[in-house]
Amino acid sequence: MSADEANTSPLERIQRPEVSKETAKKIALVEEQFIRAEVEQLRQSTLLLRPLFEKRSEVIAEPDVRDTFWTRVMLNAPAEIEEYITMTDATILASTLKNLTVERFEIDEKAQGEPRSFRLTFEFRTGDENPYFENEKLVKEFYWRKQALTTAKGHKRTWDGLVSEPVRINWKKGQDPTKGLLDAACDLAEAEKKGGDRKKLPEFAKVIEKREEIEAAEEQEEDEDELPEDGPGGMSFFAFFGYRGSDVTAEHSQNATKEDNERFEKLLKGESVDGEEEDDDEDDDVEDDFDDIEVFPGGDELAIAIAEDLWPNALKYYVTDQSIEEVDFDDSELDISADEEEEEENDRPRKKTKV
Amino acid sequence: MSADEANTSPLERIQRPEVSKETAKKIALVEEQFIRAEVEQLRQSTLLLRPLFEKRSEVIAEPDVRDTFWTRVMLNAPAEIEEYITMTDATILASTLKNLTVERFEIDEKAQGEPRSFRLTFEFRTGDENPYFENEKLVKEFYWRKQALTTAKGHKRTWDGLVSEPVRINWKKGQDPTKGLLDAACDLAEAEKKGGDRKKLPEFAKVIEKREEIEAAEEQEEDEDELPEDGPGGMSFFAFFGYRGSDVTAEHSQNATKEDNERFEKLLKGESVDGEEEDDDEDDDVEDDFDDIEVFPGGDELAIAIAEDLWPNALKYYVTDQSIEEVDFDDSELDISADEEEEEENDRPRKKTKV
Repeated sequence: MSADEANTSPLERIQRPEVSKETAKKIALVEEQFIRAEVEQLRQSTLLLRPLFEKRSEVIAEPDVRDTFWTRVMLNAPAEIEEYITMTDATILASTLKNLTVERFEIDEKAQGEPRSFRLTFEFRTGDENPYFENEKLVKEFYWRKQALTTAKGHKRTWDGLVSEPVRINWKKGQDPTKGLLDAACDLAEAEKKGGDRKKLPEFAKVIEKREEIEAAEEQEEDEDELPEDGPGGMSFFAFFGYRGSDVTAEHSQNATKEDNERFEKLLKGESVDGEEEDDDEDDDVEDDFDDIEVFPGGDELAIAIAEDLWPNALKYYVTDQSIEEVDFDDSELDISADEEEEEENDRPRKKTKV
Repeated sequence: MSADEANTSPLERIQRPEVSKETAKKIALVEEQFIRAEVEQLRQSTLLLRPLFEKRSEVIAEPDVRDTFWTRVMLNAPAEIEEYITMTDATILASTLKNLTVERFEIDEKAQGEPRSFRLTFEFRTGDENPYFENEKLVKEFYWRKQALTTAKGHKRTWDGLVSEPVRINWKKGQDPTKGLLDAACDLAEAEKKGGDRKKLPEFAKVIEKREEIEAAEEQEEDEDELPEDGPGGMSFFAFFGYRGSDVTAEHSQNATKEDNERFEKLLKGESVDGEEEDDDEDDDVEDDFDDIEVFPGGDELAIAIAEDLWPNALKYYVTDQSIEEVDFDDSELDISADEEEEEENDRPRKKTKV
């Protein structure tokens, strides 16, 4: 025990471990290996579980289940999803949502590809059965992309995460719960494709204006002490279809991924890599003007919660009665076994099953 | 739309879906297939991740990490673990815990076996460096077992979950934070092995008495409005070593598992199985006198949280500073990169990595 150690209590030493740069690097490398192993497992399990998800789709297409399945699942969902669904959204979903599918579409039959990209397909009633919008399907694709960035001070960083394009909803007159925000996001993305500086586009100003309107309305509601029945920032769930994340192209991402893999391979071999010696500097940020135009911040978290939790655990959410307890409802009329209703919604194997 | 449906709102229909017995059975079968697929995945990943866990063990054996690693991880652990660690426990762990290992020991080199069984090995300082107890190691094994049960009304049920044997700790004089409860649990288990009716053993009465003493002490503390610095029921973490769960033998479990697999195979083929037509009956319970002698209720949940969360995510918990915010501590002295400290502790792949 050094003289230094003798002066600190065991709890203090645990609260401030003095880890060398060298060891911190080793820790970071092993952690990256774990993350890569997790991605590989997701790749394998995506392929293995596909037949089971298909079987589930058949079961929930049964006439006595299909009309209520996905809405019930969404309303029983964990807080991280349910918080985004306003009462208005719930009413729209309850009367129109027919089906939901999640596909990790970049995984081929040999389990090759990026398993963190996925496609959400929402299917809806149409015509007179849908007083809200015209779309029969809303297809929202999320691509896992990596971006090579340079900080204000010239250091290299990478970002990786989900990017997506806004998906337009053809609202019937006066029915848009996003109050024009989703349309503005779609208009901006379309205008950007025609070229020009984003910030000079009139569609850019329109997105900012719509965001401010919604924030102002939300603040007023809060002042008036109304019931907080809206999602974060007063946002409708349907604004989620406007999520973009970032605008990393597939090509940029491929190059950044290739470079990153090379860096990782070098580290594995014990070779040194550029930039590794940099000090961390919390003030040395990457400029990101995407924050200004993101109409649904947290859209990536929500998308991941849908793909990683709601989708694989849908049967569990269907048979729980979490949201039901809050309303006047007689349990006994629900034709699902009591055992199943009482199940916890974690994803570890059940403790009790019936013979 | 039937006349019945016309009378209910969409939200009401979702809150009370009218699912037929037939469909409910199909849902239960698909759900069981998912659970079995999850177990198979755990089997595969156990084998695949072993080399990575070994590499991690090497890194955390570095001199600047090993003295603080596991205690820091345990104190940064999620609430479901941390709630069991009293201030007294934290002090003991901080000055004595040297290493923790989780082994899913029933998985062989061909990835065969029960992946939900595991062994926790805690290693400690000894001699003068440990004023609390004599043990150099505490090895607690958890076996995933299945039990065939018969209800009060004669119906068949199965239970499956973790069973374990009490592990004795050789406390130094006056140092036992379980106040004799763990010893009583060990004494009872040993006495039971010699045969006889459990409830007539003097060791049975002793366990009941110790439990009541601790509960009474806890109630008194609550009345005196003291700070709630103890775990649930005033229990020390070290009483966890007394957890038993149930007393299902390996042989009984093998037979019950075999029967259960046969039932499952029949269901898959669309054949009917005994007992499947039973109505659920919440009052039709299985008598369980194990509740009386369980010195650490929830020990299975805690063990699973350690094996499924603390162990695989230990590096993440090590680099977070969750518990540290509560104490007077200067962040900058912690030699781990700021990026890593800010990471969320969920287990999905990171969004930001450095080049």
